[in-house]
Amino acid sequence: MRDVAIIGIGQTPVREHWDEGLRHLALKALQAAMKDAGVDRVDALYVGNMLSGELTGQEHLGALVADFAGLRGVEAVKVEAACGSGAAALRLGYVAVAGGLADVVLVVGVEKMTDATGPEATAALAMAADADHEVAHGLSFVAINALLMRRYMHEFGYRKEDFAPFTVNAHANGMNNPYAMFHTKVTPEAYARARMIADPINLLDSSPIADGAAAVVLAPADWARRMGRPVVRIAASAIATDTVALHDRRDPLVLEGAALSAWRAYQQAGVRPEDVDLFELHDAFSIMAALSLEAAGFARRGEGVRLALDGEITLQGRIPIATMGGLKARGHPVGATGVYQVVEVVQQLRGEAGANQVPDARVGMAQNIGGSGATVITHILIRDS
Amino acid sequence: MRDVAIIGIGQTPVREHWDEGLRHLALKALQAAMKDAGVDRVDALYVGNMLSGELTGQEHLGALVADFAGLRGVEAVKVEAACGSGAAALRLGYVAVAGGLADVVLVVGVEKMTDATGPEATAALAMAADADHEVAHGLSFVAINALLMRRYMHEFGYRKEDFAPFTVNAHANGMNNPYAMFHTKVTPEAYARARMIADPINLLDSSPIADGAAAVVLAPADWARRMGRPVVRIAASAIATDTVALHDRRDPLVLEGAALSAWRAYQQAGVRPEDVDLFELHDAFSIMAALSLEAAGFARRGEGVRLALDGEITLQGRIPIATMGGLKARGHPVGATGVYQVVEVVQQLRGEAGANQVPDARVGMAQNIGGSGATVITHILIRDS
Repeated sequence: MRDVAIIGIGQTPVREHWDEGLRHLALKALQAAMKDAGVDRVDALYVGNMLSGELTGQEHLGALVADFAGLRGVEAVKVEAACGSGAAALRLGYVAVAGGLADVVLVVGVEKMTDATGPEATAALAMAADADHEVAHGLSFVAINALLMRRYMHEFGYRKEDFAPFTVNAHANGMNNPYAMFHTKVTPEAYARARMIADPINLLDSSPIADGAAAVVLAPADWARRMGRPVVRIAASAIATDTVALHDRRDPLVLEGAALSAWRAYQQAGVRPEDVDLFELHDAFSIMAALSLEAAGFARRGEGVRLALDGEITLQGRIPIATMGGLKARGHPVGATGVYQVVEVVQQLRGEAGANQVPDARVGMAQNIGGSGATVITHILIRDS
Repeated sequence: MRDVAIIGIGQTPVREHWDEGLRHLALKALQAAMKDAGVDRVDALYVGNMLSGELTGQEHLGALVADFAGLRGVEAVKVEAACGSGAAALRLGYVAVAGGLADVVLVVGVEKMTDATGPEATAALAMAADADHEVAHGLSFVAINALLMRRYMHEFGYRKEDFAPFTVNAHANGMNNPYAMFHTKVTPEAYARARMIADPINLLDSSPIADGAAAVVLAPADWARRMGRPVVRIAASAIATDTVALHDRRDPLVLEGAALSAWRAYQQAGVRPEDVDLFELHDAFSIMAALSLEAAGFARRGEGVRLALDGEITLQGRIPIATMGGLKARGHPVGATGVYQVVEVVQQLRGEAGANQVPDARVGMAQNIGGSGATVITHILIRDS
């Protein structure tokens, strides 16, 4: 097995791109990544996407994006793992380069959600849950997360307003990210006043439906070392699964898939939670941020919210999260999100995160989640010193 | 890179499985494959599927199938490349084992199409074409193939009835395959009388919409050699792409993606077309069989139909195709088809093809196509002598 590096990154702003289709968004992100990498050809293209069929009537994105990008002929497929599709595509790209079956691999995450109506998008997102045993009973994704959040509050004695720091932090960080969807500060008071969506989840607990694309170029680390700039190595790439249906979990408040995925990643990279300088986690809802912090070993069971209340998740804290805005403020174009997270970790490790730079960041972790924790993909990136 | 073998195969009958969902079909196929391989755990699961979201409201099949199969926790994703999804999933499984990132990988192709109405299925299948530049103008998949077939007849001077041997051969072979959807002989006269669907494509040129699942277990060839039965090695695994839209091709009658995919496979395996003992090709429509034979080097341009008329595609011919019925008679549950093809090649190479056995088959090729030739996946399997 070879060491694999990320030699190029690219992203479009996350927002409602009414004037651009899937292929156009993908093209912009991948062209930026290829330019950043200094390559004009690749051996394979993996496209992460969840909803192109349901929301835009287009499957077959591998060939579609390859052709539109002038890469006709190249190996290309689409990878799907619900909202974890982007990082799942990255994992497969990593496997190809690490195993020596490809040298230069392009990974693109892309999603186009805002041409659909809200109810259409909500129904489409529910396809990440169990169609027969959850969705058939009327559960949407926000409803599933509301059940989790209510149970968490009951079990550990938190109040609704205790979750405010996740949103306040994400929006504060999004202010300085030109690619973020929202550039609006959120105060604890605004959080408390926000419109309720599915009690106890309010509008400011929820990441927004959005359009966007992000891309990375992978190559053997040896190549990267010859490029004369900081080498960001994929020190770990791990996928773990859990039950799709929430009611099948041993304990709904323990994301076992996330714990297993993080554990595998720590083993591969040879690091522990305390070595991680920043953590781009899957804050699709505030409760997911809390549960992810616990599953990955940054807080004990029931103490994820406490960590946030103590200010430890900010850029100055013990474990900065959502450093460029996270799903909440950068936006959550679902199949692209996992690639955005990794792009942002690379920005941090290269020292290109501007006002949001985590000082001397060397070890960054990204965790992308499909469904309510059914597929969890963890990447640990390390900057060679 | 390590040699990779297929150590287990499994399949469900192809038909209208109204009493079984996606997860049940996938389970039956993968349990059969794991039993055949003699393994009770795997390192990763790749699920090939195209239409589960659109037709059954369920995405996230990687985690869903893993959980239902008792493999909770395992790495699992869905791979999509239109009707080439099954073989694309196999390609990614091959990459993982060949590169040494996994030892035992399970690949399942599954599709459930018959709960939908015909028009729903037709619209869903059209998502393999270009939504903006083909489907928006009213082109369905059968219409695209009708354009190709009409042009082929015009260009090379064939009559409609000259295509009959493809269907006659497929149905004759399907008679002896218990997993095939159709067990009905077709005569040239019946072909000539068949109901027209999209002139010149009639009902007997068209593979049927169907439900089904097929699975294979991959492992390093060294492991397989210790199992004490014929070792079937994946000597080549290659994906190539072409334009999604037909009108962008240099020559619509040349499947450049198929030619490139086959060429890459021949290079990897170190074989030539004349070394291939049987060819499971993508006969979704008769015209695709003809074009595939030409692209893979078994006939010159315009002579694929001639090869069939000369009887060279039968079990006794120079290059037997659709030896277990092909897409036409075995059936075409789209995301599963590529895995069915490979399962059938393994049956032939193991000498387990019963009445349809190609004598002393040692080199078998399978080619799975997404769209009208936009993604083409070719596998060459070789039985160690």
